[in-house]
Amino acid sequence: MFRGVLESAKEFKKVVDTVATLLDEICFEVDEEGVKAAAMDPSHVALVSLEIPRLAFEEYEADSHEIGIDLEAFKKVMNRAKSKDKLILELDEDKNKLNVIFENTGKRKFSLALLDISSSSVKVPDIEYPNVIMIKGDAFKEALKDADLFSDYVILKVDEEKFVVHAKSDLNESEAVFEKDSSAIISLDVKEAAKSAFNLDYLMDMVKGISKGDIVKIYLGNDMPVKIEYSLAGVNLTFLLAPRIEG
Amino acid sequence: MFRGVLESAKEFKKVVDTVATLLDEICFEVDEEGVKAAAMDPSHVALVSLEIPRLAFEEYEADSHEIGIDLEAFKKVMNRAKSKDKLILELDEDKNKLNVIFENTGKRKFSLALLDISSSSVKVPDIEYPNVIMIKGDAFKEALKDADLFSDYVILKVDEEKFVVHAKSDLNESEAVFEKDSSAIISLDVKEAAKSAFNLDYLMDMVKGISKGDIVKIYLGNDMPVKIEYSLAGVNLTFLLAPRIEG
Amino acid sequence: MFRGVLESAKEFKKVVDTVATLLDEICFEVDEEGVKAAAMDPSHVALVSLEIPRLAFEEYEADSHEIGIDLEAFKKVMNRAKSKDKLILELDEDKNKLNVIFENTGKRKFSLALLDISSSSVKVPDIEYPNVIMIKGDAFKEALKDADLFSDYVILKVDEEKFVVHAKSDLNESEAVFEKDSSAIISLDVKEAAKSAFNLDYLMDMVKGISKGDIVKIYLGNDMPVKIEYSLAGVNLTFLLAPRIEG
Repeated sequence: MFRGVLESAKEFKKVVDTVATLLDEICFEVDEEGVKAAAMDPSHVALVSLEIPRLAFEEYEADSHEIGIDLEAFKKVMNRAKSKDKLILELDEDKNKLNVIFENTGKRKFSLALLDISSSSVKVPDIEYPNVIMIKGDAFKEALKDADLFSDYVILKVDEEKFVVHAKSDLNESEAVFEKDSSAIISLDVKEAAKSAFNLDYLMDMVKGISKGDIVKIYLGNDMPVKIEYSLAGVNLTFLLAPRIEG
Repeated sequence: MFRGVLESAKEFKKVVDTVATLLDEICFEVDEEGVKAAAMDPSHVALVSLEIPRLAFEEYEADSHEIGIDLEAFKKVMNRAKSKDKLILELDEDKNKLNVIFENTGKRKFSLALLDISSSSVKVPDIEYPNVIMIKGDAFKEALKDADLFSDYVILKVDEEKFVVHAKSDLNESEAVFEKDSSAIISLDVKEAAKSAFNLDYLMDMVKGISKGDIVKIYLGNDMPVKIEYSLAGVNLTFLLAPRIEG
Repeated sequence: MFRGVLESAKEFKKVVDTVATLLDEICFEVDEEGVKAAAMDPSHVALVSLEIPRLAFEEYEADSHEIGIDLEAFKKVMNRAKSKDKLILELDEDKNKLNVIFENTGKRKFSLALLDISSSSVKVPDIEYPNVIMIKGDAFKEALKDADLFSDYVILKVDEEKFVVHAKSDLNESEAVFEKDSSAIISLDVKEAAKSAFNLDYLMDMVKGISKGDIVKIYLGNDMPVKIEYSLAGVNLTFLLAPRIEG
């Protein structure tokens, strides 16, 4: 069996929105400890991983299951969530469906067909990074939107003094500079100045669910994939994106 | 002559918006008692009826007239209404126009050409229904939007305990259950459990003008058209929709 | 050199938005006195002129320069302004760029390539007008939007009693009447009743940046171009539009 209750359907909607921009389908691995999933995007450029620890649920009960879900349908359903709705996720093994229930003064139930996919063996690799930037999520998100004006890739740069988000076209440039003591920076852990270019569309998809108040951890090195971590509604999200080789 | 003043142009806009989704043109029958109109939609599946009793107007003066109006043009004009505008409707018999006037600190006047259509003989049939559901309009509207995710028709079900809005595709399902004692239900008058399927697009058009606080009456039987009644800004709206025969 | 600081990037955005709907590129003439620009739109129907006096800037320093800018790119950048951002405009003569900097808790810098265009010799002609209407900008803007429902041109009429914005199609009409003592009218200076027709798209572009609280001056005569003047964020904007010859 599997049944989990989350306090805010609206918050969880952000998680599904974000994941659904990068993946078409997902296989949730549920067990006593909680819910996990990890997958590469269809073009194998980005890795998406999420973890919902048992404690993030108001109520939780689960045996071991793999639950394959079409993310387009899941996203459509989650978009119907209202502000004060609780979210109940529950596996209907007889009908082979995942029930998605919004509970408020009334009860609205959606049943999603299970997909016959099994969990990938993808894991977030255990790499040690020389630099970690903790930054206000919305400031980082806005800097990426700035970059998006004139380019389809972005350069992330960090040294002991500052974190820089830079982009340029043939004619125009954008640059957001976050000094070490700027109010947007929570901490700047730098062992070795680094600079790498990344595909902007992927990065923007990865931060899609972020809103004011969320904090993002950016792990950055030279010639290394960037790792991005944040939590939404008790869900831990991790993204990895390979650097772009500049021509 | 005909001249009527309504307190809120913005509220009346919702009436015109709703009616204009179902009908292309309308013939208002005005007389001393008030304003009436009734018509079938172009594909003859849905019946629309509205009544504005004399008392719904702040000021009212009328002889007998039939006033044919293009609803697309009327809707465009009503969409220009601002929050505090009064609405004056007045027949200009010399120019053969309906003047639509928004009065606030200034005065904005639109003149709509009259159409040469006469009132239909359509009437809401005087059927006795076994079941009447009184429900908060926005709750019903949201349940229809839920149903719209996966299907183009919806099943309405009622028994002594609950009212249910259900829809399904090959893969997925949605269901909103309103228990008798749910806060969305005002009353549930059930003589005979009933269940019928209806075209979802039409139903959604019919409830278009509903907002928070509006109450809807749903008359439901087996193999009967559903009747939907509610009031907007003093205007009584009635809709009838034939059931869908399931294959 | 040139460097100017404006208090509100968000306010200046409205100026750029408005000018960019009419012009593709602009040549700012800067000197000790402030910033100026004037140009005809590409179809040579409308004249756009703007002046930013030195005093409109919080800080200002400039030699004589002509700064050619692509307005599409400038508009994209200005759309990234946030509510509390200051705006710094600064010429980078070495790189041949205009830096557009948003300063708040952080600092976001955009660099726009300079275009090789020189200032036009266009000037707002020094015509004496028989009539001047001072009107609340949003009331005028709404009247133009009303007119836009049924026509692609609008008739502006003024006499000693009122200012009228009128439009009609074959079937329908719209008319906004502003009486001399209406709260939307600040003043009505009329020497000779006048009436002229103008292209509605151009007029609507010209008032695009206007919001609640802005006051517009309309200079109107018979067979004369209409002149429209207002200020946004300390920037004086003037527009001239040739009358339409009615067939």
